[in-house]
Amino acid sequence: MVALLGGDGTDRIEALTDGVLAIVLTLLVLQFEVPDVDPSALPGALADQETLAVSYVLSFAIVGLYWTIHHNLFRDIVEHDRLLLWLNLGFLLSISFLPYPTEVLGTYGTTFAWVLYAVNLSLVGITLTAVWAYAAHAGFTSDRIDARLARLITIRGLISPATFALSIAVATVNLSLAYVVPALIAPLQLLWVRYYGRATEALER
Amino acid sequence: MVALLGGDGTDRIEALTDGVLAIVLTLLVLQFEVPDVDPSALPGALADQETLAVSYVLSFAIVGLYWTIHHNLFRDIVEHDRLLLWLNLGFLLSISFLPYPTEVLGTYGTTFAWVLYAVNLSLVGITLTAVWAYAAHAGFTSDRIDARLARLITIRGLISPATFALSIAVATVNLSLAYVVPALIAPLQLLWVRYYGRATEALER
Amino acid sequence: MVALLGGDGTDRIEALTDGVLAIVLTLLVLQFEVPDVDPSALPGALADQETLAVSYVLSFAIVGLYWTIHHNLFRDIVEHDRLLLWLNLGFLLSISFLPYPTEVLGTYGTTFAWVLYAVNLSLVGITLTAVWAYAAHAGFTSDRIDARLARLITIRGLISPATFALSIAVATVNLSLAYVVPALIAPLQLLWVRYYGRATEALER
Amino acid sequence: MVALLGGDGTDRIEALTDGVLAIVLTLLVLQFEVPDVDPSALPGALADQETLAVSYVLSFAIVGLYWTIHHNLFRDIVEHDRLLLWLNLGFLLSISFLPYPTEVLGTYGTTFAWVLYAVNLSLVGITLTAVWAYAAHAGFTSDRIDARLARLITIRGLISPATFALSIAVATVNLSLAYVVPALIAPLQLLWVRYYGRATEALER
Repeated sequence: MVALLGGDGTDRIEALTDGVLAIVLTLLVLQFEVPDVDPSALPGALADQETLAVSYVLSFAIVGLYWTIHHNLFRDIVEHDRLLLWLNLGFLLSISFLPYPTEVLGTYGTTFAWVLYAVNLSLVGITLTAVWAYAAHAGFTSDRIDARLARLITIRGLISPATFALSIAVATVNLSLAYVVPALIAPLQLLWVRYYGRATEALER
Repeated sequence: MVALLGGDGTDRIEALTDGVLAIVLTLLVLQFEVPDVDPSALPGALADQETLAVSYVLSFAIVGLYWTIHHNLFRDIVEHDRLLLWLNLGFLLSISFLPYPTEVLGTYGTTFAWVLYAVNLSLVGITLTAVWAYAAHAGFTSDRIDARLARLITIRGLISPATFALSIAVATVNLSLAYVVPALIAPLQLLWVRYYGRATEALER
Repeated sequence: MVALLGGDGTDRIEALTDGVLAIVLTLLVLQFEVPDVDPSALPGALADQETLAVSYVLSFAIVGLYWTIHHNLFRDIVEHDRLLLWLNLGFLLSISFLPYPTEVLGTYGTTFAWVLYAVNLSLVGITLTAVWAYAAHAGFTSDRIDARLARLITIRGLISPATFALSIAVATVNLSLAYVVPALIAPLQLLWVRYYGRATEALER
Repeated sequence: MVALLGGDGTDRIEALTDGVLAIVLTLLVLQFEVPDVDPSALPGALADQETLAVSYVLSFAIVGLYWTIHHNLFRDIVEHDRLLLWLNLGFLLSISFLPYPTEVLGTYGTTFAWVLYAVNLSLVGITLTAVWAYAAHAGFTSDRIDARLARLITIRGLISPATFALSIAVATVNLSLAYVVPALIAPLQLLWVRYYGRATEALER
């Protein structure tokens, strides 16, 4: 109530989150180090950074994905309490750690490095889903969200961590295949939209 | 008055603070350096970064704590003058220095490193409390804050620096114990809420 | 519709973009490393960083240019959907990669380094123009943008990538000349303003 | 006109500036490197970073000063055009370069390093004053600013670059003294306030 009177809403949560994600997106590039070679060997030396480039684009796309999800969720989270602040900080903790596993993966490219990376990304998805689930449970969501819709959105939030969990299993069998597993997120999300589309039509923008 | 007419309020103070805190939260990860070892030795090499990981999570949680406090205080600070800007810059100076003591602590883990770290964090708490105390004294707070409430909030602000001062004393006796002392902040805050709860009920979200 | 009712608009897209561009602008300075020489040799050692300084100022100016363009375009993009978010993330991906080619160019200064740099900058311009073209096509622009105006603005958006494409051709003949080609952007933009001035008069601030 | 109708104002200029300044404030700490010494030698090794600490606090205070000035100026700059965007980008270019001269100064501490640093800071002040002078000349300021007031504020803006110019002259004679010259900024600003106080009373918060 007071929060509403004060007109505060969730503006600063969104501002802090936008800030952290903007920095994470931009810090990812710092893992590239200018090679110290003869100028004629430069093209080859840069081509050797291919693994780094793959993990860079992958991490950028996934941080971007979580930003769009956060963006969409907070259009319907209109109030907050202290616990919600802390759950969101948990999300920020896990996502701001990402540049490190990204660099480890880009440098080593081993199964172990992938597991580390995928565990980190699962945690990102789980904490963000926890933010939503708590907000819905505590009644901080806008009027257009009813109990069923809240549950459906929670399920959608679990698509991404479940995909990364799956990629860990795949990595133990075939590492190259594991890199492709996150691409499942897009069709699974579309499947969700198609399946629950009518119920959530209003949210699809 | 002019400030109110100008419709300026404290938006840019909050924007600058959110920006600095977002960057501090994100820079903390830069202290991790990808170990240069044989791929098979990677898990062990990462496990050796345990001290770094502890100081990382601790600093993240404390910067997060100060962000929630700043967030709550500025919902009731509605005007400002030049001195308030500078007090807030003092807060930002002390908190943006934190990544350095964090890395020193994570690298050395000695009593001296803890003292440096705890002194830094005490200063963060003291400067933020000074921002509030000055705002209350200068009449920049919203109408729902009376003199008694302002004093109670000042007292709450001192919980965290007092805890870090205590941790310095503890560190001279037992360093491992000192790492746990900051965990006292949460119950002490709850105690404050319980004790002064009725007076400040309106603020507890 | 819902987006409009929700009052969401494009605020967070602009906030994320401002955040990323602010960080890119500021990270560019990190490529300068304090030389480790005798104090008396410091002036000479800093003078040797001339190539770095040129690529630094060039990149700063171009990121600044793209910020002003983004700023102007989003005054007329008033709605968005998921695809627009992703197109904007594509723009952010290409521009946040820029510090790396900038440092490569500042360190090597070869034709190959210029090609890399110019390709990166062409992509920045192409992705931002794609954001606009899609927004106009999807009807997310404000009422004062009609089909012809939207097309003219798309053409303006291609001035900068076309100039960088031209600079690649020039670089294969004369590298020093290639550095000067981006200076064509300003007069070409003015030419565009003069030529289409009447149609777009309302937009020119 | 269109800008006013569009309700755009100077929000994104302020957002970009807040972002850049927040990052500059926070990047300054990166110049500190954790010393690689025996744990028992850590206190001494940190004490050796005294010159770095001085240049760190000085730069932080000065960036803070420019932020408060920018903050105050843009409360009265209510419109903008393309040239104002670029003048503001010139201000951001000069201030985002500051971490480099700061680190050079902290590492070398020679007269030459001070000259570099003071030239950088003079440029920061000159570009920001140019933003204001142009805005006043182009009629982008709020109604409460008349021609005389605009001129007085321009004069105030020159206090800081003039002080740094003076510090260069002082540095050629006595370097230690040069570090103290910037402290003149505060009393000179107060003098300005006292002298022109009545005319600008309304602005002094």
